[in-house]
Amino acid sequence: MTDITISPIGIMHCDLKTRAEAPRNFDISHEIGTLEIFPKYIDAMEKIAAGQTIVVLSWLHKARRDLFKVYPRGDRSRGLHGVFATRSPVRPNPIALSELKVLEIDGNHIKVSGVDVLDETPILDIKKKL
Amino acid sequence: MTDITISPIGIMHCDLKTRAEAPRNFDISHEIGTLEIFPKYIDAMEKIAAGQTIVVLSWLHKARRDLFKVYPRGDRSRGLHGVFATRSPVRPNPIALSELKVLEIDGNHIKVSGVDVLDETPILDIKKKL
Repeated sequence: MTDITISPIGIMHCDLKTRAEAPRNFDISHEIGTLEIFPKYIDAMEKIAAGQTIVVLSWLHKARRDLFKVYPRGDRSRGLHGVFATRSPVRPNPIALSELKVLEIDGNHIKVSGVDVLDETPILDIKKKL
Repeated sequence: MTDITISPIGIMHCDLKTRAEAPRNFDISHEIGTLEIFPKYIDAMEKIAAGQTIVVLSWLHKARRDLFKVYPRGDRSRGLHGVFATRSPVRPNPIALSELKVLEIDGNHIKVSGVDVLDETPILDIKKKL
């Protein structure tokens, strides 16, 4: 099957600089950050508003892609799991899925809470939460 | 920002051949399908089991990528929305997010229900549902 080429639609700005600082998932995070959406995509932001929860797909540019089994959350007592049975950032295509609360919109910037990815993570897509 | 290259980890097999036949989202779908995971990724499937709900990211290879505003669910009374404020398949990077019920595992095949993507859709990633 042929490869797919994706151009990021934006970038995350936040205070998380290392994996050790990052919350394990959005559902336990109180981190604030700002999604900078590249200007060519600004029309696609229309109707995103403060108070909404948005689903954000991002590209974990620092994650390993060559490891297919992990101990979930580092817990060896549960045994090795295939990465597709976990939420580990380690996976062949390290796309993160985060549900973030919109705090404020300012032009092409979306201020959010619940951030669980590192500063400068490329953003691939944003969706309405079902 | 540089482009990202993604190699699909599998392919969807199902009876949905055209957009008109496809349910609008997984949450209203009763369609059955089979995820064929490419053999090199079989280790990453370990611990996926019947009865689980998995999160599946796929690439909507037939969706338009050049349209940034849509009428959600075709309803013109609600006005145009930016695609990032919707679940439309139309978007710059048409990655679908589906929550599918695992019915059966057979080697590198995962039989699922709730399918809302077309036959032959490339699969990018599978995650545990939080």
